[in-house]
Amino acid sequence: MTSTVVVLDAAHPEGVLADPSVPLVRIDDQGLTRGDGVFETMRAVDGLVQKFEAHHQRLSASARLAQLPVPSARDVRGAVELALAHAAPGGDGGLGAEHAVKVVISRGTPADGPWSWIVVSPVPETTFRQRRDGVTAVLLPRGHDPAQDAGYPWLLPGAKTLSYAINMAALRHARSLGADEAVFTTEGRRVLEGATSSVVCARVRVGRRTLLTPEPSHGILPGTTQAKIFAAARRDGWELGYGPLYPADLMEADAVWLVSSVRLAVPVRRLDHQPLPVDPDLTRLVTSWVQQA
Amino acid sequence: MTSTVVVLDAAHPEGVLADPSVPLVRIDDQGLTRGDGVFETMRAVDGLVQKFEAHHQRLSASARLAQLPVPSARDVRGAVELALAHAAPGGDGGLGAEHAVKVVISRGTPADGPWSWIVVSPVPETTFRQRRDGVTAVLLPRGHDPAQDAGYPWLLPGAKTLSYAINMAALRHARSLGADEAVFTTEGRRVLEGATSSVVCARVRVGRRTLLTPEPSHGILPGTTQAKIFAAARRDGWELGYGPLYPADLMEADAVWLVSSVRLAVPVRRLDHQPLPVDPDLTRLVTSWVQQA
Repeated sequence: MTSTVVVLDAAHPEGVLADPSVPLVRIDDQGLTRGDGVFETMRAVDGLVQKFEAHHQRLSASARLAQLPVPSARDVRGAVELALAHAAPGGDGGLGAEHAVKVVISRGTPADGPWSWIVVSPVPETTFRQRRDGVTAVLLPRGHDPAQDAGYPWLLPGAKTLSYAINMAALRHARSLGADEAVFTTEGRRVLEGATSSVVCARVRVGRRTLLTPEPSHGILPGTTQAKIFAAARRDGWELGYGPLYPADLMEADAVWLVSSVRLAVPVRRLDHQPLPVDPDLTRLVTSWVQQA
Repeated sequence: MTSTVVVLDAAHPEGVLADPSVPLVRIDDQGLTRGDGVFETMRAVDGLVQKFEAHHQRLSASARLAQLPVPSARDVRGAVELALAHAAPGGDGGLGAEHAVKVVISRGTPADGPWSWIVVSPVPETTFRQRRDGVTAVLLPRGHDPAQDAGYPWLLPGAKTLSYAINMAALRHARSLGADEAVFTTEGRRVLEGATSSVVCARVRVGRRTLLTPEPSHGILPGTTQAKIFAAARRDGWELGYGPLYPADLMEADAVWLVSSVRLAVPVRRLDHQPLPVDPDLTRLVTSWVQQA
Protein backbone atom coordinates (compact mmCIF):
# COMPACT_ATOMS: atom_id res chain seq x y z
CA MET A 1 0.00 0.00 0.00
CA THR A 2 1.26 3.49 -0.80
CA SER A 3 0.37 4.76 2.64
CA THR A 4 2.31 6.60 5.31
CA VAL A 5 1.70 5.69 8.93
CA VAL A 6 2.39 7.62 12.13
CA VAL A 7 1.83 5.84 15.44
CA LEU A 8 0.98 7.64 18.69
CA ASP A 9 1.49 5.48 21.77
CA ALA A 10 2.79 5.76 25.32
CA ALA A 11 6.39 5.80 24.07
CA HIS A 12 5.64 8.33 21.30
CA PRO A 13 2.79 10.63 22.40
CA GLU A 14 3.62 13.06 19.60
CA GLY A 15 3.83 10.37 16.96
CA VAL A 16 6.53 8.43 15.16
CA LEU A 17 6.70 7.18 11.57
CA ALA A 18 6.07 3.45 11.16
CA ASP A 19 6.53 1.13 8.19
CA PRO A 20 3.12 -0.09 6.95
CA SER A 21 4.73 -2.80 4.80
CA VAL A 22 5.25 -4.84 7.99
CA PRO A 23 2.65 -5.86 10.60
CA LEU A 24 2.18 -3.16 13.24
CA VAL A 25 -0.73 -4.55 15.25
CA ARG A 26 -0.77 -7.33 17.83
CA ILE A 27 -3.14 -10.24 17.46
CA ASP A 28 -4.87 -9.43 20.78
CA ASP A 29 -5.44 -5.75 19.97
CA GLN A 30 -9.06 -5.13 20.93
CA GLY A 31 -9.50 -2.89 17.89
CA LEU A 32 -9.11 -6.16 15.98
CA THR A 33 -10.67 -8.73 18.31
CA ARG A 34 -13.70 -6.60 19.22
CA GLY A 35 -13.91 -3.74 16.69
CA ASP A 36 -13.30 -1.70 19.83
CA GLY A 37 -12.00 1.65 18.65
CA VAL A 38 -13.10 4.85 16.92
CA PHE A 39 -11.94 6.69 13.84
CA GLU A 40 -12.24 9.68 11.54
CA THR A 41 -11.41 10.02 7.87
CA MET A 42 -10.34 13.47 6.71
CA ARG A 43 -9.17 15.00 3.46
CA ALA A 44 -5.99 16.97 2.92
CA VAL A 45 -5.53 19.29 -0.06
CA ASP A 46 -2.04 20.47 -0.94
CA GLY A 47 -0.92 19.29 2.50
CA LEU A 48 -3.67 21.07 4.45
CA VAL A 49 -6.29 19.09 6.36
CA GLN A 50 -9.86 20.26 5.72
CA LYS A 51 -12.29 20.94 8.62
CA PHE A 52 -9.82 19.54 11.13
CA GLU A 53 -11.64 20.99 14.15
CA ALA A 54 -14.96 19.35 13.22
CA HIS A 55 -13.21 15.99 12.80
CA HIS A 56 -11.30 16.25 16.06
CA GLN A 57 -14.53 17.20 17.83
CA ARG A 58 -16.39 14.21 16.43
CA LEU A 59 -13.42 11.93 17.20
CA SER A 60 -13.51 13.23 20.76
CA ALA A 61 -17.28 12.63 20.98
CA SER A 62 -16.85 9.07 19.67
CA ALA A 63 -13.97 8.45 22.09
CA ARG A 64 -15.97 9.82 25.02
CA LEU A 65 -18.87 7.44 24.30
CA ALA A 66 -16.45 4.53 23.97
CA GLN A 67 -14.47 5.66 27.04
CA LEU A 68 -11.25 5.92 25.07
CA PRO A 69 -8.57 8.58 25.57
CA VAL A 70 -8.26 10.99 22.66
CA PRO A 71 -4.92 12.58 21.70
CA SER A 72 -5.03 16.39 21.83
CA ALA A 73 -5.87 18.34 18.68
CA ARG A 74 -2.28 19.59 18.76
CA ASP A 75 -0.83 16.06 18.86
CA VAL A 76 -3.16 14.76 16.15
CA ARG A 77 -2.43 17.72 13.92
CA GLY A 78 1.32 17.31 14.44
CA ALA A 79 1.14 13.60 13.67
CA VAL A 80 -0.94 14.24 10.53
CA GLU A 81 1.57 16.84 9.36
CA LEU A 82 4.43 14.41 9.96
CA ALA A 83 2.61 11.74 7.93
CA LEU A 84 1.76 14.19 5.12
CA ALA A 85 5.36 15.38 4.97
CA HIS A 86 6.46 11.80 4.19
CA ALA A 87 3.50 10.78 2.03
CA ALA A 88 3.50 9.78 -1.62
CA PRO A 89 2.28 12.60 -3.91
CA GLY A 90 -1.42 13.33 -3.54
CA GLY A 91 -3.98 12.26 -6.11
CA ASP A 92 -4.85 14.87 -8.74
CA GLY A 93 -8.52 15.15 -9.61
CA GLY A 94 -8.35 18.81 -10.57
CA LEU A 95 -8.81 20.18 -7.06
CA GLY A 96 -5.20 20.12 -5.86
CA ALA A 97 -3.04 17.30 -4.48
CA GLU A 98 -5.40 15.22 -2.35
CA HIS A 99 -4.77 12.75 0.45
CA ALA A 100 -7.13 10.73 2.60
CA VAL A 101 -6.14 11.02 6.26
CA LYS A 102 -7.46 8.42 8.65
CA VAL A 103 -7.11 8.78 12.43
CA VAL A 104 -7.81 5.69 14.53
CA ILE A 105 -7.92 5.18 18.31
CA SER A 106 -7.94 1.53 19.37
CA ARG A 107 -8.52 0.01 22.81
CA GLY A 108 -5.17 -1.72 22.19
CA THR A 109 -4.03 -4.92 23.89
CA PRO A 110 -5.12 -5.75 27.45
CA ALA A 111 -1.46 -5.40 28.45
CA ASP A 112 -0.59 -2.08 26.77
CA GLY A 113 -3.93 -0.28 26.50
CA PRO A 114 -5.14 2.32 23.99
CA TRP A 115 -3.05 3.74 21.18
CA SER A 116 -3.67 5.73 18.00
CA TRP A 117 -2.40 5.92 14.49
CA ILE A 118 -2.67 8.03 11.39
CA VAL A 119 -2.77 6.61 7.87
CA VAL A 120 -2.24 8.97 4.95
CA SER A 121 -2.87 7.75 1.38
CA PRO A 122 -3.21 9.50 -1.98
CA VAL A 123 -6.87 9.85 -2.99
CA PRO A 124 -7.34 7.20 -5.68
CA GLU A 125 -8.58 7.67 -9.23
CA THR A 126 -11.79 5.73 -8.41
CA THR A 127 -12.81 8.56 -6.09
CA PHE A 128 -12.27 11.20 -8.79
CA ARG A 129 -14.29 9.07 -11.19
CA GLN A 130 -17.18 8.83 -8.71
CA ARG A 131 -17.21 12.60 -8.21
CA ARG A 132 -17.31 13.06 -11.99
CA ASP A 133 -19.55 10.22 -13.16
CA GLY A 134 -21.68 9.63 -10.09
CA VAL A 135 -22.76 6.32 -8.60
CA THR A 136 -25.74 4.00 -8.62
CA ALA A 137 -27.35 3.16 -5.29
CA VAL A 138 -29.98 0.86 -3.81
CA LEU A 139 -32.15 1.45 -0.76
CA LEU A 140 -31.67 -1.29 1.86
CA PRO A 141 -33.75 -1.63 5.03
CA ARG A 142 -31.70 -1.04 8.20
CA GLY A 143 -34.12 -3.37 10.02
CA HIS A 144 -34.68 -1.39 13.18
CA ASP A 145 -34.83 2.39 13.33
CA PRO A 146 -31.48 3.44 14.84
CA ALA A 147 -33.28 6.36 16.51
CA GLN A 148 -34.51 3.70 18.95
CA ASP A 149 -30.92 3.32 20.18
CA ALA A 150 -30.26 7.04 20.60
CA GLY A 151 -31.04 7.30 24.30
CA TYR A 152 -28.62 4.59 25.45
CA PRO A 153 -24.94 5.58 25.65
CA TRP A 154 -23.81 1.92 25.89
CA LEU A 155 -25.16 1.42 22.35
CA LEU A 156 -22.65 4.09 21.22
CA PRO A 157 -25.23 6.16 19.26
CA GLY A 158 -23.49 8.54 16.87
CA ALA A 159 -20.04 7.13 17.61
CA LYS A 160 -17.90 6.30 14.58
CA THR A 161 -16.48 2.97 15.75
CA LEU A 162 -14.35 0.33 14.07
CA SER A 163 -17.39 -2.01 14.20
CA TYR A 164 -18.42 -1.48 10.59
CA ALA A 165 -19.09 -5.09 9.58
CA ILE A 166 -22.74 -4.38 8.77
CA ASN A 167 -21.93 -1.32 6.67
CA MET A 168 -19.41 -3.38 4.69
CA ALA A 169 -21.94 -6.23 4.27
CA ALA A 170 -24.52 -3.72 2.99
CA LEU A 171 -22.01 -2.47 0.40
CA ARG A 172 -21.30 -6.03 -0.72
CA HIS A 173 -25.04 -6.66 -0.99
CA ALA A 174 -25.52 -3.48 -3.04
CA ARG A 175 -22.75 -4.63 -5.39
CA SER A 176 -24.37 -8.05 -5.74
CA LEU A 177 -27.44 -6.14 -6.98
CA GLY A 178 -25.32 -4.30 -9.53
CA ALA A 179 -25.20 -1.00 -7.63
CA ASP A 180 -22.21 0.91 -6.26
CA GLU A 181 -23.66 2.08 -2.98
CA ALA A 182 -26.18 1.22 -0.26
CA VAL A 183 -28.51 3.77 1.36
CA PHE A 184 -30.19 2.59 4.56
CA THR A 185 -33.89 3.16 5.24
CA THR A 186 -36.06 2.40 8.26
CA GLU A 187 -38.81 -0.22 8.14
CA GLY A 188 -41.11 2.77 7.49
CA ARG A 189 -38.98 3.64 4.43
CA ARG A 190 -37.52 6.78 6.00
CA VAL A 191 -34.11 7.51 4.43
CA LEU A 192 -31.22 7.30 6.91
CA GLU A 193 -27.70 7.46 5.47
CA GLY A 194 -25.32 5.79 3.05
CA ALA A 195 -23.13 2.92 4.24
CA THR A 196 -20.19 5.33 4.50
CA SER A 197 -21.75 8.69 3.61
CA SER A 198 -24.56 11.17 4.33
CA VAL A 199 -27.47 11.75 1.95
CA VAL A 200 -28.12 15.30 0.68
CA CYS A 201 -30.57 16.39 -2.00
CA ALA A 202 -31.51 19.67 -3.70
CA ARG A 203 -34.91 21.02 -4.69
CA VAL A 204 -34.78 24.00 -7.02
CA ARG A 205 -37.91 26.09 -7.65
CA VAL A 206 -38.19 29.60 -9.06
CA GLY A 207 -37.01 31.89 -6.27
CA ARG A 208 -36.59 29.05 -3.81
CA ARG A 209 -33.66 26.71 -3.54
CA THR A 210 -33.66 24.09 -0.77
CA LEU A 211 -31.06 21.62 0.45
CA LEU A 212 -32.40 18.61 2.34
CA THR A 213 -30.91 15.86 4.52
CA PRO A 214 -32.35 13.29 6.96
CA GLU A 215 -32.62 14.47 10.58
CA PRO A 216 -29.02 14.32 11.84
CA SER A 217 -30.04 13.54 15.44
CA HIS A 218 -32.18 10.50 14.63
CA GLY A 219 -29.68 7.70 15.10
CA ILE A 220 -27.48 8.49 12.12
CA LEU A 221 -23.91 9.71 12.17
CA PRO A 222 -23.76 13.53 12.17
CA GLY A 223 -21.92 14.23 8.89
CA THR A 224 -19.13 16.81 9.02
CA THR A 225 -19.34 17.26 5.24
CA GLN A 226 -23.14 17.63 5.30
CA ALA A 227 -22.79 20.22 8.10
CA LYS A 228 -20.22 22.22 6.13
CA ILE A 229 -22.30 22.13 2.95
CA PHE A 230 -25.39 23.30 4.83
CA ALA A 231 -23.56 26.17 6.56
CA ALA A 232 -22.25 27.44 3.21
CA ALA A 233 -25.61 26.96 1.47
CA ARG A 234 -27.32 29.04 4.13
CA ARG A 235 -24.79 31.84 3.56
CA ASP A 236 -25.64 31.64 -0.15
CA GLY A 237 -29.36 32.11 0.55
CA TRP A 238 -30.50 28.51 0.27
CA GLU A 239 -33.22 27.18 2.52
CA LEU A 240 -32.31 24.15 4.60
CA GLY A 241 -34.52 21.20 5.43
CA TYR A 242 -33.82 18.43 7.91
CA GLY A 243 -35.89 15.33 7.03
CA PRO A 244 -37.80 13.14 7.41
CA LEU A 245 -37.00 12.15 3.82
CA TYR A 246 -38.67 9.30 1.97
CA PRO A 247 -37.60 7.59 -1.27
CA ALA A 248 -40.15 9.71 -3.19
CA ASP A 249 -38.37 12.86 -1.95
CA LEU A 250 -35.13 11.61 -3.48
CA MET A 251 -36.85 10.47 -6.69
CA GLU A 252 -38.41 13.93 -7.12
CA ALA A 253 -35.31 15.93 -6.15
CA ASP A 254 -33.32 17.92 -8.70
CA ALA A 255 -30.12 16.28 -7.54
CA VAL A 256 -29.09 13.72 -4.91
CA TRP A 257 -25.57 13.27 -3.53
CA LEU A 258 -23.76 10.97 -1.17
CA VAL A 259 -21.43 13.28 0.70
CA SER A 260 -18.37 12.38 2.76
CA SER A 261 -15.06 13.93 3.65
CA VAL A 262 -12.87 12.36 0.99
CA ARG A 263 -15.36 11.72 -1.79
CA LEU A 264 -17.00 15.16 -1.32
CA ALA A 265 -20.35 15.27 -3.19
CA VAL A 266 -20.89 12.20 -5.35
CA PRO A 267 -24.01 12.45 -7.54
CA VAL A 268 -26.44 9.55 -7.34
CA ARG A 269 -27.43 8.98 -10.94
CA ARG A 270 -29.64 5.93 -10.35
CA LEU A 271 -31.55 4.85 -7.24
CA ASP A 272 -33.20 1.43 -7.07
CA HIS A 273 -32.75 1.19 -10.87
CA GLN A 274 -34.61 4.47 -11.47
CA PRO A 275 -32.62 7.30 -13.12
CA LEU A 276 -32.17 10.48 -11.06
CA PRO A 277 -31.42 13.89 -12.55
CA VAL A 278 -27.74 14.78 -12.42
CA ASP A 279 -26.85 18.48 -12.50
CA PRO A 280 -23.11 19.12 -12.96
CA ASP A 281 -23.55 22.83 -12.14
CA LEU A 282 -25.20 22.02 -8.82
CA THR A 283 -22.51 19.43 -8.06
CA ARG A 284 -19.83 22.04 -8.76
CA LEU A 285 -21.62 24.48 -6.45
CA VAL A 286 -21.93 21.94 -3.62
CA THR A 287 -18.30 20.90 -4.12
CA SER A 288 -17.20 24.53 -3.92
CA TRP A 289 -19.01 24.80 -0.58
CA VAL A 290 -17.08 21.80 0.77
CA GLN A 291 -13.86 23.34 -0.50
CA GLN A 292 -14.35 26.67 1.30
CA ALA A 293 -11.77 27.39 4.01
CA MET B 1 0.36 -12.76 26.80
CA THR B 2 0.74 -16.50 27.45
CA SER B 3 -0.98 -17.40 24.20
CA THR B 4 -0.03 -19.61 21.32
CA VAL B 5 -0.93 -18.50 17.81
CA VAL B 6 -1.27 -20.46 14.58
CA VAL B 7 -1.83 -18.53 11.37
CA LEU B 8 -3.64 -19.97 8.32
CA ASP B 9 -3.04 -17.96 5.17
CA ALA B 10 -2.41 -18.50 1.46
CA ALA B 11 1.18 -19.54 2.15
CA HIS B 12 0.22 -21.84 5.04
CA PRO B 13 -3.27 -23.24 4.44
CA GLU B 14 -2.71 -25.88 7.13
CA GLY B 15 -1.38 -23.41 9.65
CA VAL B 16 1.96 -22.29 10.98
CA LEU B 17 3.02 -21.22 14.47
CA ALA B 18 3.50 -17.46 14.90
CA ASP B 19 5.01 -15.43 17.72
CA PRO B 20 2.27 -13.34 19.44
CA SER B 21 4.85 -11.22 21.27
CA VAL B 22 5.41 -9.32 18.01
CA PRO B 23 2.82 -7.58 15.80
CA LEU B 24 1.26 -10.00 13.32
CA VAL B 25 -1.45 -7.84 11.74
CA ARG B 26 -1.15 -5.11 9.12
CA ILE B 27 -2.55 -1.67 9.81
CA ASP B 28 -4.93 -1.92 6.81
CA ASP B 29 -6.34 -5.32 7.76
CA GLN B 30 -10.08 -4.93 7.39
CA GLY B 31 -10.66 -7.02 10.51
CA LEU B 32 -9.11 -4.03 12.26
CA THR B 33 -10.27 -1.08 10.15
CA ARG B 34 -13.86 -2.31 9.76
CA GLY B 35 -14.41 -5.06 12.34
CA ASP B 36 -14.86 -7.11 9.18
CA GLY B 37 -14.36 -10.71 10.22
CA VAL B 38 -16.00 -13.52 12.16
CA PHE B 39 -14.92 -15.69 15.08
CA GLU B 40 -15.67 -18.53 17.45
CA THR B 41 -14.40 -19.17 20.95
CA MET B 42 -14.16 -22.81 21.99
CA ARG B 43 -12.93 -24.67 25.06
CA ALA B 44 -10.36 -27.44 25.14
CA VAL B 45 -10.10 -29.86 28.07
CA ASP B 46 -6.94 -31.95 28.43
CA GLY B 47 -6.09 -31.03 24.84
CA LEU B 48 -9.49 -31.98 23.36
CA VAL B 49 -11.73 -29.31 21.83
CA GLN B 50 -15.35 -29.49 23.03
CA LYS B 51 -18.27 -29.45 20.56
CA PHE B 52 -15.93 -28.69 17.68
CA GLU B 53 -18.51 -29.53 15.00
CA ALA B 54 -21.08 -27.08 16.39
CA HIS B 55 -18.45 -24.33 16.47
CA HIS B 56 -17.21 -25.03 12.97
CA GLN B 57 -20.81 -25.04 11.73
CA ARG B 58 -21.57 -21.68 13.34
CA LEU B 59 -18.24 -20.27 12.09
CA SER B 60 -19.23 -21.42 8.59
CA ALA B 61 -22.67 -19.83 8.95
CA SER B 62 -21.11 -16.53 10.09
CA ALA B 63 -18.58 -16.65 7.26
CA ARG B 64 -21.30 -17.38 4.71
CA LEU B 65 -23.30 -14.32 5.79
CA ALA B 66 -20.17 -12.17 5.70
CA GLN B 67 -19.07 -13.74 2.40
CA LEU B 68 -15.76 -14.88 3.85
CA PRO B 69 -14.01 -18.16 2.99
CA VAL B 70 -13.91 -20.63 5.86
CA PRO B 71 -11.04 -23.07 6.34
CA SER B 72 -12.18 -26.71 6.32
CA ALA B 73 -13.01 -28.42 9.60
CA ARG B 74 -9.95 -30.58 9.01
CA ASP B 75 -7.63 -27.58 8.60
CA VAL B 76 -9.09 -25.75 11.60
CA ARG B 77 -8.85 -28.86 13.76
CA GLY B 78 -5.26 -29.46 12.68
CA ALA B 79 -4.31 -25.85 13.38
CA VAL B 80 -5.97 -25.98 16.80
CA GLU B 81 -4.12 -29.19 17.63
CA LEU B 82 -0.84 -27.60 16.55
CA ALA B 83 -1.53 -24.58 18.80
CA LEU B 84 -2.57 -26.79 21.72
CA ALA B 85 0.55 -28.89 21.35
CA HIS B 86 2.68 -25.77 21.89
CA ALA B 87 0.46 -24.02 24.45
CA ALA B 88 1.28 -23.16 28.06
CA PRO B 89 -0.28 -25.60 30.55
CA GLY B 90 -4.06 -25.30 30.76
CA GLY B 91 -5.80 -23.65 33.68
CA ASP B 92 -6.93 -25.99 36.44
CA GLY B 93 -10.38 -25.31 37.88
CA GLY B 94 -11.05 -28.90 38.87
CA LEU B 95 -12.39 -30.01 35.49
CA GLY B 96 -9.11 -30.88 33.76
CA ALA B 97 -6.50 -28.71 32.02
CA GLU B 98 -8.53 -26.03 30.23
CA HIS B 99 -7.67 -23.74 27.31
CA ALA B 100 -9.71 -21.11 25.50
CA VAL B 101 -9.40 -21.59 21.74
CA LYS B 102 -10.32 -18.66 19.54
CA VAL B 103 -10.67 -19.02 15.75
CA VAL B 104 -10.82 -15.81 13.73
CA ILE B 105 -11.38 -15.21 10.00
CA SER B 106 -10.57 -11.66 8.90
CA ARG B 107 -11.24 -9.98 5.57
CA GLY B 108 -7.50 -9.21 5.62
CA THR B 109 -5.81 -6.42 3.69
CA PRO B 110 -7.17 -5.25 0.34
CA ALA B 111 -3.93 -6.55 -1.21
CA ASP B 112 -3.75 -10.01 0.38
CA GLY B 113 -7.36 -10.85 1.22
CA PRO B 114 -8.81 -13.08 3.92
CA TRP B 115 -6.80 -15.08 6.42
CA SER B 116 -7.44 -16.90 9.67
CA TRP B 117 -5.74 -17.50 12.95
CA ILE B 118 -6.10 -19.54 16.10
CA VAL B 119 -5.27 -18.21 19.56
CA VAL B 120 -4.97 -20.70 22.41
CA SER B 121 -4.67 -19.43 26.00
CA PRO B 122 -4.98 -21.12 29.41
CA VAL B 123 -8.39 -20.47 30.97
CA PRO B 124 -7.71 -17.85 33.67
CA GLU B 125 -8.48 -18.08 37.38
CA THR B 126 -11.14 -15.31 37.02
CA THR B 127 -13.22 -17.72 34.92
CA PHE B 128 -13.01 -20.47 37.55
CA ARG B 129 -13.98 -17.94 40.22
CA GLN B 130 -17.05 -16.88 38.19
CA ARG B 131 -18.17 -20.48 37.76
CA ARG B 132 -17.82 -20.99 41.54
CA ASP B 133 -19.00 -17.65 42.97
CA GLY B 134 -21.34 -16.47 40.22
CA VAL B 135 -21.68 -12.93 38.87
CA THR B 136 -23.91 -9.91 39.30
CA ALA B 137 -25.72 -8.58 36.23
CA VAL B 138 -27.83 -5.64 35.13
CA LEU B 139 -30.51 -5.54 32.46
CA LEU B 140 -29.71 -2.98 29.74
CA PRO B 141 -32.09 -2.00 26.92
CA ARG B 142 -30.77 -3.04 23.50
CA GLY B 143 -32.71 -0.11 22.02
CA HIS B 144 -34.27 -1.81 19.05
CA ASP B 145 -35.45 -5.40 18.99
CA PRO B 146 -32.78 -7.28 16.99
CA ALA B 147 -35.52 -9.59 15.69
CA GLN B 148 -36.37 -6.63 13.41
CA ASP B 149 -33.04 -7.20 11.63
CA ALA B 150 -33.46 -10.95 11.22
CA GLY B 151 -34.84 -10.92 7.67
CA TYR B 152 -31.99 -8.94 6.10
CA PRO B 153 -28.80 -10.87 5.37
CA TRP B 154 -26.80 -7.64 4.87
CA LEU B 155 -27.38 -6.89 8.56
CA LEU B 156 -25.55 -10.15 9.36
CA PRO B 157 -28.24 -11.49 11.71
CA GLY B 158 -26.87 -14.30 13.87
CA ALA B 159 -23.30 -13.86 12.56
CA LYS B 160 -20.61 -13.69 15.23
CA THR B 161 -18.54 -10.84 13.79
CA LEU B 162 -15.54 -8.90 15.09
CA SER B 163 -17.82 -5.82 15.36
CA TYR B 164 -18.40 -6.15 19.11
CA ALA B 165 -17.90 -2.50 20.13
CA ILE B 166 -21.45 -2.22 21.51
CA ASN B 167 -21.18 -5.46 23.51
CA MET B 168 -17.93 -4.18 25.04
CA ALA B 169 -19.50 -0.78 25.80
CA ALA B 170 -22.44 -2.53 27.50
CA LEU B 171 -20.00 -4.46 29.71
CA ARG B 172 -18.19 -1.23 30.63
CA HIS B 173 -21.53 0.36 31.45
CA ALA B 174 -22.53 -2.62 33.62
CA ARG B 175 -19.24 -2.33 35.51
CA SER B 176 -19.79 1.40 36.03
CA LEU B 177 -23.05 0.35 37.75
CA GLY B 178 -21.14 -2.05 40.00
CA ALA B 179 -22.19 -5.21 38.14
CA ASP B 180 -20.06 -7.81 36.36
CA GLU B 181 -22.27 -8.48 33.37
CA ALA B 182 -24.86 -6.92 31.05
CA VAL B 183 -28.00 -8.70 29.85
CA PHE B 184 -29.77 -7.05 26.92
CA THR B 185 -33.54 -6.57 26.83
CA THR B 186 -35.85 -5.19 24.18
CA GLU B 187 -37.75 -1.94 24.67
CA GLY B 188 -40.63 -4.22 25.72
CA ARG B 189 -38.35 -5.71 28.43
CA ARG B 190 -38.08 -9.08 26.71
CA VAL B 191 -34.80 -10.73 27.74
CA LEU B 192 -32.36 -11.25 24.85
CA GLU B 193 -28.83 -12.39 25.74
CA GLY B 194 -25.76 -11.47 27.74
CA ALA B 195 -23.08 -9.26 26.18
CA THR B 196 -20.97 -12.39 25.51
CA SER B 197 -23.24 -15.23 26.68
CA SER B 198 -26.69 -16.83 26.45
CA VAL B 199 -29.25 -16.66 29.26
CA VAL B 200 -30.62 -19.93 30.67
CA CYS B 201 -32.83 -20.39 33.72
CA ALA B 202 -34.36 -23.32 35.60
CA ARG B 203 -37.79 -23.75 37.11
CA VAL B 204 -38.11 -26.72 39.46
CA ARG B 205 -41.55 -27.86 40.61
CA VAL B 206 -42.56 -31.21 42.10
CA GLY B 207 -42.47 -33.68 39.22
CA ARG B 208 -41.69 -31.00 36.67
CA ARG B 209 -38.30 -29.51 35.91
CA THR B 210 -38.03 -26.95 33.12
CA LEU B 211 -35.09 -25.24 31.47
CA LEU B 212 -35.84 -21.93 29.73
CA THR B 213 -34.00 -19.63 27.31
CA PRO B 214 -35.05 -16.71 25.06
CA GLU B 215 -36.16 -17.69 21.54
CA PRO B 216 -32.90 -18.50 19.76
CA SER B 217 -34.18 -17.37 16.37
CA HIS B 218 -35.29 -13.90 17.44
CA GLY B 219 -32.25 -11.85 16.56
CA ILE B 220 -29.91 -13.29 19.16
CA LEU B 221 -26.86 -15.42 18.60
CA PRO B 222 -27.74 -19.14 18.65
CA GLY B 223 -25.68 -20.37 21.62
CA THR B 224 -23.75 -23.60 21.10
CA THR B 225 -23.49 -24.07 24.86
CA GLN B 226 -27.20 -23.39 25.39
CA ALA B 227 -27.99 -25.92 22.63
CA LYS B 228 -25.79 -28.58 24.21
CA ILE B 229 -27.27 -28.01 27.68
CA PHE B 230 -30.81 -28.26 26.28
CA ALA B 231 -30.10 -31.48 24.38
CA ALA B 232 -28.69 -33.14 27.51
CA ALA B 233 -31.48 -31.81 29.73
CA ARG B 234 -34.07 -33.30 27.40
CA ARG B 235 -32.34 -36.68 27.64
CA ASP B 236 -32.52 -36.35 31.44
CA GLY B 237 -36.28 -35.79 31.32
CA TRP B 238 -36.36 -32.00 31.69
CA GLU B 239 -38.95 -29.94 29.85
CA LEU B 240 -37.58 -27.23 27.60
CA GLY B 241 -39.00 -23.76 27.09
CA TYR B 242 -37.99 -21.24 24.47
CA GLY B 243 -38.97 -17.70 25.58
CA PRO B 244 -40.27 -15.08 25.46
CA LEU B 245 -38.70 -14.45 28.86
CA TYR B 246 -39.23 -11.28 30.89
CA PRO B 247 -37.27 -10.00 33.91
CA ALA B 248 -39.97 -11.40 36.23
CA ASP B 249 -39.32 -14.88 34.80
CA LEU B 250 -35.65 -14.58 35.80
CA MET B 251 -36.49 -13.11 39.20
CA GLU B 252 -38.84 -16.03 39.93
CA ALA B 253 -36.58 -18.77 38.53
CA ASP B 254 -34.85 -21.28 40.77
CA ALA B 255 -31.53 -20.54 39.11
CA VAL B 256 -30.27 -18.28 36.31
CA TRP B 257 -27.02 -18.76 34.41
CA LEU B 258 -25.02 -16.97 31.77
CA VAL B 259 -23.72 -19.78 29.59
CA SER B 260 -20.88 -19.69 27.09
CA SER B 261 -18.27 -22.05 25.73
CA VAL B 262 -15.37 -21.18 28.01
CA ARG B 263 -17.15 -19.97 31.12
CA LEU B 264 -19.69 -22.84 30.96
CA ALA B 265 -22.63 -22.09 33.32
CA VAL B 266 -21.99 -19.03 35.48
CA PRO B 267 -24.71 -18.50 38.12
CA VAL B 268 -26.26 -15.03 38.23
CA ARG B 269 -26.52 -14.31 41.93
CA ARG B 270 -27.87 -10.79 41.64
CA LEU B 271 -29.86 -9.13 38.84
CA ASP B 272 -30.54 -5.38 38.87
CA HIS B 273 -29.48 -5.36 42.53
CA GLN B 274 -32.03 -8.05 43.45
CA PRO B 275 -30.65 -11.34 44.85
CA LEU B 276 -31.40 -14.46 42.80
CA PRO B 277 -31.38 -18.00 44.20
CA VAL B 278 -28.13 -19.85 43.53
CA ASP B 279 -28.26 -23.62 43.54
CA PRO B 280 -24.81 -25.27 43.44
CA ASP B 281 -26.34 -28.70 42.78
CA LEU B 282 -28.21 -27.39 39.72
CA THR B 283 -25.07 -25.61 38.53
CA ARG B 284 -23.11 -28.85 38.86
CA LEU B 285 -25.81 -30.68 36.89
CA VAL B 286 -25.85 -28.08 34.10
CA THR B 287 -22.05 -28.07 34.02
CA SER B 288 -22.01 -31.86 33.71
CA TRP B 289 -24.32 -31.55 30.69
CA VAL B 290 -21.87 -29.15 29.02
CA GLN B 291 -19.03 -31.53 29.82
CA GLN B 292 -20.66 -34.55 28.18
CA ALA B 293 -18.79 -35.89 25.17
